[in-house]
Amino acid sequence: MMFRIAECRVTPILIEDPPLLNAQGVHQPYTPRTIVEIVTENGVVGLGETYGDAEYLTVAEAFAPRLAGAGLTVNDLGARVAACAAGAGVTGLDAAVNAGGLRGSRTLDKVAASVASGFEVAILDALGRELGVPVHQLLGGKVRDRVEYSAYLFYRWARHPGPGEPCDDWGAALDPEGVVAQARRMVERYGFTSFKLKGGVLPPFEEVDAVLALHDTFPGRPLRLDPNGAWSVPTSLAVAARLEGVAEYLEDPTSGTAGMAEVARGTSLPLATNMCVTGFAEIPEAFARNAVQVVLSDHHYWGGLRATQDLAAVCRTFGVGMSMHSNTHLGISLAAMTQVAATVPGLRYACDTHRPWQTEDVITRPHTFTDGALPVTDTPGLGVELDRDALARLHRRYAESDVRGRDDAAAMRRVHPDWRTPDLPRW
Amino acid sequence: MMFRIAECRVTPILIEDPPLLNAQGVHQPYTPRTIVEIVTENGVVGLGETYGDAEYLTVAEAFAPRLAGAGLTVNDLGARVAACAAGAGVTGLDAAVNAGGLRGSRTLDKVAASVASGFEVAILDALGRELGVPVHQLLGGKVRDRVEYSAYLFYRWARHPGPGEPCDDWGAALDPEGVVAQARRMVERYGFTSFKLKGGVLPPFEEVDAVLALHDTFPGRPLRLDPNGAWSVPTSLAVAARLEGVAEYLEDPTSGTAGMAEVARGTSLPLATNMCVTGFAEIPEAFARNAVQVVLSDHHYWGGLRATQDLAAVCRTFGVGMSMHSNTHLGISLAAMTQVAATVPGLRYACDTHRPWQTEDVITRPHTFTDGALPVTDTPGLGVELDRDALARLHRRYAESDVRGRDDAAAMRRVHPDWRTPDLPRW
Repeated sequence: MMFRIAECRVTPILIEDPPLLNAQGVHQPYTPRTIVEIVTENGVVGLGETYGDAEYLTVAEAFAPRLAGAGLTVNDLGARVAACAAGAGVTGLDAAVNAGGLRGSRTLDKVAASVASGFEVAILDALGRELGVPVHQLLGGKVRDRVEYSAYLFYRWARHPGPGEPCDDWGAALDPEGVVAQARRMVERYGFTSFKLKGGVLPPFEEVDAVLALHDTFPGRPLRLDPNGAWSVPTSLAVAARLEGVAEYLEDPTSGTAGMAEVARGTSLPLATNMCVTGFAEIPEAFARNAVQVVLSDHHYWGGLRATQDLAAVCRTFGVGMSMHSNTHLGISLAAMTQVAATVPGLRYACDTHRPWQTEDVITRPHTFTDGALPVTDTPGLGVELDRDALARLHRRYAESDVRGRDDAAAMRRVHPDWRTPDLPRW
Repeated sequence: MMFRIAECRVTPILIEDPPLLNAQGVHQPYTPRTIVEIVTENGVVGLGETYGDAEYLTVAEAFAPRLAGAGLTVNDLGARVAACAAGAGVTGLDAAVNAGGLRGSRTLDKVAASVASGFEVAILDALGRELGVPVHQLLGGKVRDRVEYSAYLFYRWARHPGPGEPCDDWGAALDPEGVVAQARRMVERYGFTSFKLKGGVLPPFEEVDAVLALHDTFPGRPLRLDPNGAWSVPTSLAVAARLEGVAEYLEDPTSGTAGMAEVARGTSLPLATNMCVTGFAEIPEAFARNAVQVVLSDHHYWGGLRATQDLAAVCRTFGVGMSMHSNTHLGISLAAMTQVAATVPGLRYACDTHRPWQTEDVITRPHTFTDGALPVTDTPGLGVELDRDALARLHRRYAESDVRGRDDAAAMRRVHPDWRTPDLPRW
């Protein structure tokens, strides 16, 4: 029994996003995502989700028609999308963007991998539904029944600056008290037992104070701080010295493999990254220099769920830890993250997720965290159903808007007109 | 829909093996294999095959009962078998065996990985049959429709020395003419277009002469020579110099990572190995020293089909090539090799197989090579059926024999009473 793809639909949407701060600026009120639907010849629909910025959408829309008639094969999907991307006329991957992005260097290959991830997840979802088995079964089977997530804490404003823009009731968090209050609410609602603070926003030792406040409030709990490469090597070493014995790991304290290697040599704290190692090509140098001790996988970065397992194999072979990174995402991606995380032996760290910050979704039953974790469902495919009304509404918003990408610096300039993307290291 | 294992059967067998020569001695007339049957609660049977020597069989028999009630999950199978192996009372993995084995160093973990491979293949076969899809679909789908194999040439005697022992009509091959004649027959029968000569038998430049004779007879065809680590570094370099532009790669010319690295520095010929890198733990050092340019995967060595894909990911990440090694095996393993090879992007080399030398099998329709390749079947599971009569007959032979392992040196002593396993390097 072999299955073929009849049609592939790609739908750009805009979703609400709260004013979360980072080294680049602030999240916009609305951020784009791309929803992928793979329809098999039997009429079964598989779901995927990836970035919705113009460069990703351009590649996704160029590739989708090529899937008609193809099998549910994912092993060469990355190469097929990359070949398509090369001719898709993507622009905007210039050096300036590369230097300052939260993702580290951004190449056409990386954009293609992110697009491939959306199709790959949709194909695996479709295959699982066709066969009546969960995606994890197609990935070799789950080795755990629940996947732990961490509370992803952000410095943030209470609201976006524009009138009528989406608003939530989390309030501002701009100091240790605000961060601890946010963490308490995350714990009360979802039971998280690990915490990650997005840093790079305030002077480093103000952020250290927030981590220490978390440590006092939740003694013994794993804590992480991630300034997205905003610090110099000496600043990173000073922070690391203060957080040894407090933090679980330090995430991208400084930019670039050389700097990370220098910091790693000077601290016993493990360094994690989702910036200097975000593609397989960057692994040999980083591992040879012992620049990172934990790679933050993200199936959107690495090319899908099987690529995430590949990354896990590489990390395991070289004694490097693996955890899981997240950008703004919806329930399709959360289901995918949970399915693949369930299959990775030795995943010691709670995964990151932005999901608690998203107020909208395109699935009929958005996930709820209990005791800081999600159960690993055995429902066929990803175990989620598309909410077509929500998809149509969010697509309409996209069609009626001129937002075609995420630009945290531009969003910041609406409040601080002279803001520009900081040169790194900022501190 | 989740599937559970009702029962797991492990059956040791003895199969005929011709008098093929190598650095250790000669193949025995009979060699053991273990056949694994996984029976699901629905009565579906999945097949696997692995080594049958006592240390492997001990672990397999200890582990099999533990599978009753388990799911068809393979991601943690290696760890489960290793945990079982630790308490299984395996003996015989002493330093002397380690030093001289054709497999490189042999540890309990490696034995466990080989045992796990037999169960893993059986579980994937069972799952594929349950779902009605080929094993390659469970591995992410095939990226090619045929898998190329190489003609595996051996120096050999015409017959085993004992009366009534199994005999074939290939005749002896003990010089370049004999090797070329053997190659011609392989080509006529099976259409192979790549050739591998098992060396380490004659003085190195006699073996070089055989490779040159093959080169004259089959100009432009990929050729490989494998002395199983029998040469010193200077000898390896001298051979490499002679075979540059002739051989595709040189396989384990010398023993150990340090020696291989030294040879690699002195030749443009890629070096392949199935001795100094036969487990994930050996990869970091070997890759860091650039000791090998091609890793010869073997799902029996690395722990199964998914482990083979893991190895492929590691090799791809570090720009190291991958090919496929073989020991004496039957059709279940050949089907498994073909299924996984079909899923590995960038598999540039023809795979090794001993299959043409085996006159017996435990499947109802043994494979036939056409144009040097096997088609990748889309039949559910591995696409092979167990021949229960053959299994019973070969098991009866095992039960009535005292052969419990493979000892090429002992087999050699039947003809050359003073033979002992050569100290390496021999030349």
